[in-house]
Amino acid sequence: MQRFVFDFTEGNKDQRDLLGGKGANLAEMTRIGLPVPPGFTITTEACRAYLADGDVPSTLDEEVAAHLAALEESMGRKFGDAADPLLVSVRSGAKFSMPGMMDTVLNVGLSDRSVDGLAAQSGSERFAQDSYRRLIQMFGKTVLDVPGDPFEEALAEAKTAKGVDDDVDLDAEDLKGVVDSFKAIVLKHTGSDFPQEPAEQLRLAIRAVFSSWQGERAVLYRRTERIPDDIGTAVNIVAMVFGNLGADSGTGVAFTRDPATGEQGVYGDYLPNAQGEDVVAGIRNTVAISELARIDKAGYDELMRSARILEDHYRDLCDIEFTIERGRLWLLQTRVGKRTAAAAFTIAASLVDDGLIDVDTALGRVTGAQLAQLMFPTFGEVGDDTPKVAVGVPASPGAAVGAAVFDAHRAAARAATGAPVILVRKETNPDDLPGMLAAKGILTARGGKTSHAAVVARGMGKTCVCGADTLGVEADRAVVTAADGTETVITEGDIISVDGSTGAVYLGEVAVRPSPVVEYFETGEVPDGDPLIAAVARLMGHADDTRRLGVRANADTGEDAARARRFGAAGIGLCRTEHMFLGERRVLVERLVLASGPDERAPVLDQLLELQRADFGDILRAMDGLPVTIRLLDPPLHEFLPSLEDLAVSVALADERGDDSEEHAREVRLLAAVRRIHEQNPMLGLRGVRLGLTLPGLYDMQVRAIAEAAAALRAEGLDPRPEIMVPLVGDVRELAVIRAQTEQVLAEVEGSGDVPIGTMIEIPRAALTADRIAAEADFFSFGTNDLTQLGWGFSRDDVEGAFFGRYLELGVFPASPFETLDASGVGELVEIAVKRGRETRPGLHLGVCGEHGGDPESVRFLHRAGLDYVSCSPFRVPIARLAAGQAVLEERAAGAEHVDSR
Amino acid sequence: MQRFVFDFTEGNKDQRDLLGGKGANLAEMTRIGLPVPPGFTITTEACRAYLADGDVPSTLDEEVAAHLAALEESMGRKFGDAADPLLVSVRSGAKFSMPGMMDTVLNVGLSDRSVDGLAAQSGSERFAQDSYRRLIQMFGKTVLDVPGDPFEEALAEAKTAKGVDDDVDLDAEDLKGVVDSFKAIVLKHTGSDFPQEPAEQLRLAIRAVFSSWQGERAVLYRRTERIPDDIGTAVNIVAMVFGNLGADSGTGVAFTRDPATGEQGVYGDYLPNAQGEDVVAGIRNTVAISELARIDKAGYDELMRSARILEDHYRDLCDIEFTIERGRLWLLQTRVGKRTAAAAFTIAASLVDDGLIDVDTALGRVTGAQLAQLMFPTFGEVGDDTPKVAVGVPASPGAAVGAAVFDAHRAAARAATGAPVILVRKETNPDDLPGMLAAKGILTARGGKTSHAAVVARGMGKTCVCGADTLGVEADRAVVTAADGTETVITEGDIISVDGSTGAVYLGEVAVRPSPVVEYFETGEVPDGDPLIAAVARLMGHADDTRRLGVRANADTGEDAARARRFGAAGIGLCRTEHMFLGERRVLVERLVLASGPDERAPVLDQLLELQRADFGDILRAMDGLPVTIRLLDPPLHEFLPSLEDLAVSVALADERGDDSEEHAREVRLLAAVRRIHEQNPMLGLRGVRLGLTLPGLYDMQVRAIAEAAAALRAEGLDPRPEIMVPLVGDVRELAVIRAQTEQVLAEVEGSGDVPIGTMIEIPRAALTADRIAAEADFFSFGTNDLTQLGWGFSRDDVEGAFFGRYLELGVFPASPFETLDASGVGELVEIAVKRGRETRPGLHLGVCGEHGGDPESVRFLHRAGLDYVSCSPFRVPIARLAAGQAVLEERAAGAEHVDSR
Repeated sequence: MQRFVFDFTEGNKDQRDLLGGKGANLAEMTRIGLPVPPGFTITTEACRAYLADGDVPSTLDEEVAAHLAALEESMGRKFGDAADPLLVSVRSGAKFSMPGMMDTVLNVGLSDRSVDGLAAQSGSERFAQDSYRRLIQMFGKTVLDVPGDPFEEALAEAKTAKGVDDDVDLDAEDLKGVVDSFKAIVLKHTGSDFPQEPAEQLRLAIRAVFSSWQGERAVLYRRTERIPDDIGTAVNIVAMVFGNLGADSGTGVAFTRDPATGEQGVYGDYLPNAQGEDVVAGIRNTVAISELARIDKAGYDELMRSARILEDHYRDLCDIEFTIERGRLWLLQTRVGKRTAAAAFTIAASLVDDGLIDVDTALGRVTGAQLAQLMFPTFGEVGDDTPKVAVGVPASPGAAVGAAVFDAHRAAARAATGAPVILVRKETNPDDLPGMLAAKGILTARGGKTSHAAVVARGMGKTCVCGADTLGVEADRAVVTAADGTETVITEGDIISVDGSTGAVYLGEVAVRPSPVVEYFETGEVPDGDPLIAAVARLMGHADDTRRLGVRANADTGEDAARARRFGAAGIGLCRTEHMFLGERRVLVERLVLASGPDERAPVLDQLLELQRADFGDILRAMDGLPVTIRLLDPPLHEFLPSLEDLAVSVALADERGDDSEEHAREVRLLAAVRRIHEQNPMLGLRGVRLGLTLPGLYDMQVRAIAEAAAALRAEGLDPRPEIMVPLVGDVRELAVIRAQTEQVLAEVEGSGDVPIGTMIEIPRAALTADRIAAEADFFSFGTNDLTQLGWGFSRDDVEGAFFGRYLELGVFPASPFETLDASGVGELVEIAVKRGRETRPGLHLGVCGEHGGDPESVRFLHRAGLDYVSCSPFRVPIARLAAGQAVLEERAAGAEHVDSR
Repeated sequence: MQRFVFDFTEGNKDQRDLLGGKGANLAEMTRIGLPVPPGFTITTEACRAYLADGDVPSTLDEEVAAHLAALEESMGRKFGDAADPLLVSVRSGAKFSMPGMMDTVLNVGLSDRSVDGLAAQSGSERFAQDSYRRLIQMFGKTVLDVPGDPFEEALAEAKTAKGVDDDVDLDAEDLKGVVDSFKAIVLKHTGSDFPQEPAEQLRLAIRAVFSSWQGERAVLYRRTERIPDDIGTAVNIVAMVFGNLGADSGTGVAFTRDPATGEQGVYGDYLPNAQGEDVVAGIRNTVAISELARIDKAGYDELMRSARILEDHYRDLCDIEFTIERGRLWLLQTRVGKRTAAAAFTIAASLVDDGLIDVDTALGRVTGAQLAQLMFPTFGEVGDDTPKVAVGVPASPGAAVGAAVFDAHRAAARAATGAPVILVRKETNPDDLPGMLAAKGILTARGGKTSHAAVVARGMGKTCVCGADTLGVEADRAVVTAADGTETVITEGDIISVDGSTGAVYLGEVAVRPSPVVEYFETGEVPDGDPLIAAVARLMGHADDTRRLGVRANADTGEDAARARRFGAAGIGLCRTEHMFLGERRVLVERLVLASGPDERAPVLDQLLELQRADFGDILRAMDGLPVTIRLLDPPLHEFLPSLEDLAVSVALADERGDDSEEHAREVRLLAAVRRIHEQNPMLGLRGVRLGLTLPGLYDMQVRAIAEAAAALRAEGLDPRPEIMVPLVGDVRELAVIRAQTEQVLAEVEGSGDVPIGTMIEIPRAALTADRIAAEADFFSFGTNDLTQLGWGFSRDDVEGAFFGRYLELGVFPASPFETLDASGVGELVEIAVKRGRETRPGLHLGVCGEHGGDPESVRFLHRAGLDYVSCSPFRVPIARLAAGQAVLEERAAGAEHVDSR
């Protein structure tokens, strides 16, 4: 027969799937001899059966009764005993922590009959009555679905009647009255009396905890935290211990190290003569844990000893919930504790020094997101002259300072003068995009982490605080109303500072501190006695030693290439050439488009050849000795020309004025050309290899520039390593034609060397026909942005603001597929192309040059898919290096698991 | 040892792969006792070896020598014999007919030494010298790469010297002089004498024929005809027979039936005293084959007997090339003959009546393209008052009449008044699209079948003649220059008639005859004694009996639905709802977009509900008892609003004028809204299910309209069968949310019945995740247009004119992937979705609603992929029915082959 209940003495910390996190850790602490109140756990399997069948397994109640009997035995008390009752707590506890999201009921087992026995045993009538009213209130709300307000009102009435402000000022008699009122409330709302039978209380409480798994809050929380919906929760039945039995009792929370910095030594808070819920409610102020040494030296010493045991045992920072009942320490819960990004690095390295973990394990203890956070600038000391005026949702990290502007167009205009700007809006919509793009940071009064502002800002990598709901945004000013009703006015142009990591908004300029981690990457220097930088250096070094994936950078200029190299890039995976046609070179594109034939095109191409040769020379020089993958021109030509709308308006107005200037004539010609090459869907139009195949000479010019630049550097004794990449190939024939032309041009330039020719795989059809394409390609580079756009059928520009927020809410995807590669859809196209490409050409070199190359989860997927390298923006290079190292460790762990399970 | 040479007595008609079409049929005729000159065939395998290795297999020359010896034996003549030489022809012959594309050399074996022997044997010195000069000329050009002009010039000089106009007026002595000149030309251009050794002539000629497989013309022809490049050609060595030995000799071409109408009886042409090349050159006029009965009764009777034998043997119309040498008939070639579309149907049915083939075979003898051609209107009698002024490339079929207009914008404007228009341009570019769309037909002076005009017109199903190069197109008129130099002027507004099936252009209005086949489909009536309609009815009936695929139609109105039903559609596979928001309903969309919230949206949705209920009622009534798949709104809302460009210009001009009218204020508001919802790539934007999920109430309104319309019809006693289709789903969650809402609305409408809810599969990710999507879908309908757009990453609107012509030329695809489904790329997505969808839901109903559903090749692919039905425009329904029947026959044949090969 399947068992659904396990005593704390039976389990261990590795049984989180079955016993939940809380249950597994309670069992573990019991197992290693730490003082845990006795109890038992009902498994998640029972919960899953309950969720599937609408009822608990038929044998469950019987099993619970048997374990309860054992508990009575060990405690020497009987459940429901009139003279000396055993009380228990009924606590939820899923595999993953979901703080506050599910139900807990304390003091189960109290009744009219046993409340007096508790009074006698505890020596406090008040304590007993207070415990009883807490049970009725908690049980009523969570088990019997009674609304919470009537209880609050009844308690308030009792205090009013007595003329006191605080619960503690109600005496036993008052509380007895409250108990009566509470029982009346239960009767009124449920039509039945509060259940007096302890076994019935327990039965109902267990079912209520199971049901709370499907509560609205819990479902929403799981969706945002990406916790599976089908794992269910365990239920822990624990003998009650009380921190509110007098001055020699109390309750608290402790960390085995400082979770903010990682520094060694126990940190935490203690509240004498209180229960856990009082700490949460914040009724009285807690004291620092060090105070406990003074209050209760024995208890303190026991806590310190337990903390040391736990950290040594878990080999990590633990947080602990504990209660001292009349001088005796009880540990109610422990788990590996949350920490800041800096602490994560510092602790991991420190535990290696302590010999508790090896460096592989340490590498697995930090995340790419933490490293990314450490690379953002932060605010330093905030002085009194820069008051914190509001706090919103920290939606996109970073520290931004600038003039508040309340309109997107004005923001763009002001930013164009070089002034830093913070765009402040009630909420944003696609109209605001130009302003968002121009701003240093974005602040909104409405919306959460999936609002338009939040989604778009994260996509842009821009600092954003949203949902600062004390902010009243008007046309050209904002009024901030503080909790006390006082108002602060922010006028357009006032300098404000916005902290995307905390959600804080300051009036005035807060000094921005550049990231010391970035300084380290720039210089390679570890300052003496800086444990954080030392930890980062150590773990990055280990990631580099471990990883199999190469990491390159996307960079288009010599300057960017040089930075990428400092950040650890082993080459350029994507050098876009479109940026090289902007600025004053736009006029050349205009002439190319207006050219009537090859004769008019030739001189323009010659001019471009000169310029491009210099462009490529710069990058190849900066990356001397390392590969530089240069993508031939990708975007449609009209992107370099003025917009159809602007031109049409300008021409119409000039016509209206009867303008007959040369400039007007030129604009009319240009308008005709722009109309001709205008596209309904430029993303799906004449671009990439299609442009190369239809505009004679363009790609040849670029190839010649690359070859000549390489030849010149080689003549200087350098070692340039260009690779030529053809974009937007959908069929092998496209690549074959360009390849033949390219080889021809390379052969014509002496000293151009051996230049690999490859293709982007960014079109679904290219992935599907990769076996054929590989016959003409020396390498593939996955353009996962376009592959995502085409695989999902939406363009990033158009949809991120338009409906991604709604889609994240609906759970269509857990993260924007432009941030984290959609492994199960778009990722399959990558896997297909890898497999088919290598079937044709076993040694085919494979990389990724979409921004996914810098996203840790995507990097791990790409490692598993068997790629040779990822390429991302220079600032993401360290993150990719870290994730690539971790991918190897995960692979080894999965392999080991695989071996184990055989 | 592998054999490379087979005597005509060794092969048969089924060996086309090995012996080529010509060789296989010569062997077949030999086998069944028809009079074929003896000879042998060098296999395509030898050619492939030659192409791969640059030389013939080492054993080939020896094998040829052995077969030549056998040939000498059977003919009683020796190759190169001075007294009585054996002469042979060396003819190319690939598996597929490539008329005129590869080389042939006649009279091989003649030399200075044997020419006199030939004269003695033939009794004609003139004949012998003429044969010799033909050999040198043909051999020189095709084998020795001597340019053709010097030969022509030398021949012309001889005629001038003698003062005659015609070759036949040159006597033996003159021709001997020509032979000398020709030999001098060969020496001059090659540095060597014309080879006198017959074996050397043969050796070189064989290699030249092999090489001609790679000739430029041949490569181009194969590309346009979609003949594989790697199959190579066979070479036939045939004993020469001569039709130019006097009045009792001659040559001709015959068909066993009339290839224009299919009528029984031998048709053809005969040219007395001539060789085949004279017929081709058209030097003298041929006579009808019936004349041969008068000239040479025995020869005629023998030909009639042979024709009967061939038709009975091949069970099909054959064409025959023959020569009569001194009263003796020789068959030089036969093959199944080309025929018109009408003849194809008539012949197929007639052969069934004759008991030669069964009706399955008859069904395989016609094509969807032929049926399509029979469904176009045609020109009737062309009177003298409507002269044919030009002939161009027949690029897109149909018969169009209208006023010639020489500018796209003027064409659109004139068409808007209701006047039929023919757009006439030198060539077209994307600027001309509005004019092309508005015109009845398109005529250009430049470009072939892959020009912009041709590609776009075919895509639009619009009549087009292009490359009419005698047309000089000017700004507002065209000048046509006839062969004799006379000029005809077409002025703007002149009525012209354009025949897209023949390329003819007429000045004036030619009466258009509606297609009798369409009349049959409309009425179901077969006129008495009309063999064509009887044949169509019979074969369509058999296709319907045979096919497994259902055929539905894409129709948006009751009228279209009724026509589709008459054309044999078993339901509506795609009822688009976007057309229902055009015209005066645009203003409702405008109000929807401008609405500030649900309160302003509600009354608009209520109005739309009324209208939509009527829309759906009409269609469901027309399709009573048959399924109607209604797609919820798909396009982005801005498609219903004025263009950003037009609005911006209008607002700017009004601002300039200081306009302060209400209308201007409205336009300003509208411009802001259009700017807000403007998209860079509307195809990849907020449309389909994304719109449904973000615009509350829209889809619910449509679902309610469907449900209420169905309920009303059901109350009338009808049997409406709506199906609801959700567009643009990429992830199962999107569908799940809409499905839940839809079920809710359906449940609210009493009598709405059981309405299946399914989804389009038109996004690559949907195909890849079809297993998950199938959990929420009652059916899939493949939107192969969007799937093609996203699979290839190009939008039809933008690219068809921009680069498809170039891509067809380069061979990137053999046909536009929007016309014929790209089986190896996009098709794989269909196959994946079919497999995965049915894994989840074995009975999943699968259809296609892209226009590919009416393309015969695509229909066959979709049948093989296991779909349940295809849906296409009403006019393509008969074509789909035919192709679906043929698909079953092909499948059975492949199955039989599979069994055979085991």
